[in-house]
Amino acid sequence: MIKPRTPPGVMELLPRDQIAFQRMLDTIRLTFERFGFLPVETPVFELSDVLLTKSGGETERQVYFVQSTGALEKGGDGLPELALRFDLTVPLARYVAEHEHELAFPFRRYQMQRVYRGERAQRGRFREFYQCDIDVIGKDALSPRFDAEIPAVIAAVFEALDIGEFTIWLNHRKLLRGFFEGQGIDGDRQLAVLRELDKLDKRGEDAVRATLVGEGFELAADVADRLLAFSRVRSSGHDDALSKLDALGAGTPLFEEGRAELRELLGRLRAMGVPESRYAINLSIARGLDYYTGMVYETTLDAYPQIGSICSGGRYDNLASHYTKSKLPGVGISIGLTRLFFQLRDAGLVAGAASSVDALVALLDDAGLDHALALSQRLREAGLNVETQLEPRKLARQLQYADRAGIGFVVIRGEDEAARGAVAVKDLRRGEQFEVSEAGLAQRLLDERQKP
Amino acid sequence: MIKPRTPPGVMELLPRDQIAFQRMLDTIRLTFERFGFLPVETPVFELSDVLLTKSGGETERQVYFVQSTGALEKGGDGLPELALRFDLTVPLARYVAEHEHELAFPFRRYQMQRVYRGERAQRGRFREFYQCDIDVIGKDALSPRFDAEIPAVIAAVFEALDIGEFTIWLNHRKLLRGFFEGQGIDGDRQLAVLRELDKLDKRGEDAVRATLVGEGFELAADVADRLLAFSRVRSSGHDDALSKLDALGAGTPLFEEGRAELRELLGRLRAMGVPESRYAINLSIARGLDYYTGMVYETTLDAYPQIGSICSGGRYDNLASHYTKSKLPGVGISIGLTRLFFQLRDAGLVAGAASSVDALVALLDDAGLDHALALSQRLREAGLNVETQLEPRKLARQLQYADRAGIGFVVIRGEDEAARGAVAVKDLRRGEQFEVSEAGLAQRLLDERQKP
Repeated sequence: MIKPRTPPGVMELLPRDQIAFQRMLDTIRLTFERFGFLPVETPVFELSDVLLTKSGGETERQVYFVQSTGALEKGGDGLPELALRFDLTVPLARYVAEHEHELAFPFRRYQMQRVYRGERAQRGRFREFYQCDIDVIGKDALSPRFDAEIPAVIAAVFEALDIGEFTIWLNHRKLLRGFFEGQGIDGDRQLAVLRELDKLDKRGEDAVRATLVGEGFELAADVADRLLAFSRVRSSGHDDALSKLDALGAGTPLFEEGRAELRELLGRLRAMGVPESRYAINLSIARGLDYYTGMVYETTLDAYPQIGSICSGGRYDNLASHYTKSKLPGVGISIGLTRLFFQLRDAGLVAGAASSVDALVALLDDAGLDHALALSQRLREAGLNVETQLEPRKLARQLQYADRAGIGFVVIRGEDEAARGAVAVKDLRRGEQFEVSEAGLAQRLLDERQKP
Repeated sequence: MIKPRTPPGVMELLPRDQIAFQRMLDTIRLTFERFGFLPVETPVFELSDVLLTKSGGETERQVYFVQSTGALEKGGDGLPELALRFDLTVPLARYVAEHEHELAFPFRRYQMQRVYRGERAQRGRFREFYQCDIDVIGKDALSPRFDAEIPAVIAAVFEALDIGEFTIWLNHRKLLRGFFEGQGIDGDRQLAVLRELDKLDKRGEDAVRATLVGEGFELAADVADRLLAFSRVRSSGHDDALSKLDALGAGTPLFEEGRAELRELLGRLRAMGVPESRYAINLSIARGLDYYTGMVYETTLDAYPQIGSICSGGRYDNLASHYTKSKLPGVGISIGLTRLFFQLRDAGLVAGAASSVDALVALLDDAGLDHALALSQRLREAGLNVETQLEPRKLARQLQYADRAGIGFVVIRGEDEAARGAVAVKDLRRGEQFEVSEAGLAQRLLDERQKP
């Protein structure tokens, strides 16, 4: 006998949680499709030489390699031929480069699949987790206008998920780098300074300031202060975002380019009707120190800042330089849904989802079986999800089962009701009961299901 | 520069095919949920010792093992710790045994995920493919009534997929084994005889008869003839199925048990309103020589018999004997969707799916951008999937893009229409154009989308 168990670092759900999770996936997908993004799925494994174009880095150490029994027996020196994807960006780059001549650009794709990382086992760290990504990829160029659609999608997704108030934080790498330039911090040192400023939340202002003016950096005290003040800038509302940008004063051409794009983006968000409570500028946000080159986005739940960013991304210059000579600039975001679901469940925000089953057709005795089967089929044809009780049990047990399973309605056809061509319906959500003619049952259940 | 490419044996789709594939997945899921099945997802990898309970078999040689970079470097003698699932049945067994005390029985689950097999590379053979499974698992016992729901689900799935006429073939392992018993063929030889009868399609009757009466089997000629006649039995319509069963004559208790269950199942299918053209008995069907113990099912497309069974399964005695002492009988089916999609596409049955994007909001000049963005958002709120043209291009190119992408409608707001508070809509499916007020646009598009 072997103990049934899953490997550490995966999230496996019981049906009611799986239903809640599936609803979140469906909501995200629906919203991505609303904005005209097209579905892509890629294989779980890629050829190792294709996946690991940048070898030796942190990423590679976390990679899972895949070998068939045959390959394993043969052995060999090099890396195994296959490896599991560790994100959806490298597969996207490979996909776009491979199918470059079959795709229309700008190419708007969404992808919602699991990715794999050999993380150390730790609560809340996952070795297998869902990412839900959108990206728009241009050929040669991609207008900054596409950057403005992204926060509108984020806003629509989290409105639809209905998990509380949230804020989309906006920044621009050119604004950041231009500001550093203006303070006399050049290209190579910008990354190091950014890395320090990224620790503000963890280390606090005093510690970061001490590092910036100390050995290694040796920034002037007033420069360090200006950097910290810049990092503190947050807006509250649309007009405040614009005036905070104005208040930054004149800057280098790069700085002005970033500021102009941010202003333009804010205008587009207003045109799209994104509520101004949903977005704000936050000049401390950097995201991925060398990947992003323009707009950057993070999203936090207002009531759960400790969860950190639940949807992040930005603009990049070239998606697939390892695979094609074509220049493919893009902009995109990613939602790490497994981690988000885990945190929401911890916070009690996704518990007790209703079943995907709308109604249980009860069975009181064997004589009623064929009728119950036929009735169930009629309800299904009307669009209801129905389970039929196939073996008679005490009614109390059937009701108890439905209640525990989160099924909203139990359809009961006792002798009296049957004589009237009717059925009794227990509404377990409200603890009520009503009688309805069999002919009217499907419509009534559809109506009741709509009620909050 | 690395050549972007996928490993052999995977099916990766361009967006329009992916949309068609996703619609099939959605249809199957919706139908599974209609019948009250609950979603389960399991991790792509299982612990090797859990997955490979029966070691050394054909299955194990096709398994993909998974190792992180760290584990790979460490090496070691035994099998790697993790392996990719090769079907959804072993993960189901592990899941049910692991969560036995948290699940309600009979447990009805569906699972639609990819599975992995180290197949030899060959056209139409996949190393990664989707399986769409349903199973009902009982604790200690499971009424044969559950077996009758399964063909009703199969019928509903393939009606909804709308890929042509199909037939669900029914047989019963007890009828088969009971018939063999009656011919004096005992337990051990039954499997060998079944294996020969399974080759009827490939080898033909004469060759199989020759084997059965030849060395090794040495069956009497009349016994061989009766076996072949039995294997030839196919019904056409409900009453014919019943009379073909009657015509088999009396048999052993096991035979009679199988026949009674088949008769009962036919009655239940009629009660559920499954059209009689959709099911037939076929006494040649055996399915998995040692796994199934009761009802067995296969499904074929009437116009494409060469595709073989597109949905198969049956009743089994005990799901998870490797993981738990509890007896868990069940019944289930599986659809190999990747292979089916591949075959349907080859046959030209799933080509040219419409886009998931309903409408493109065109852009004639930069001045119209904010209006186009706002209009797009209003259409989205009404439930339409909308792409906004963000950079002005020649209208002909915008129309050409939409047409190639399979987008049905292009919304154009020229000066004249704008002056009237209206837009022009190109209906690319019909090659027509109409004008509609902006206020009425969303409803009109929703109505038009409904039209076939």
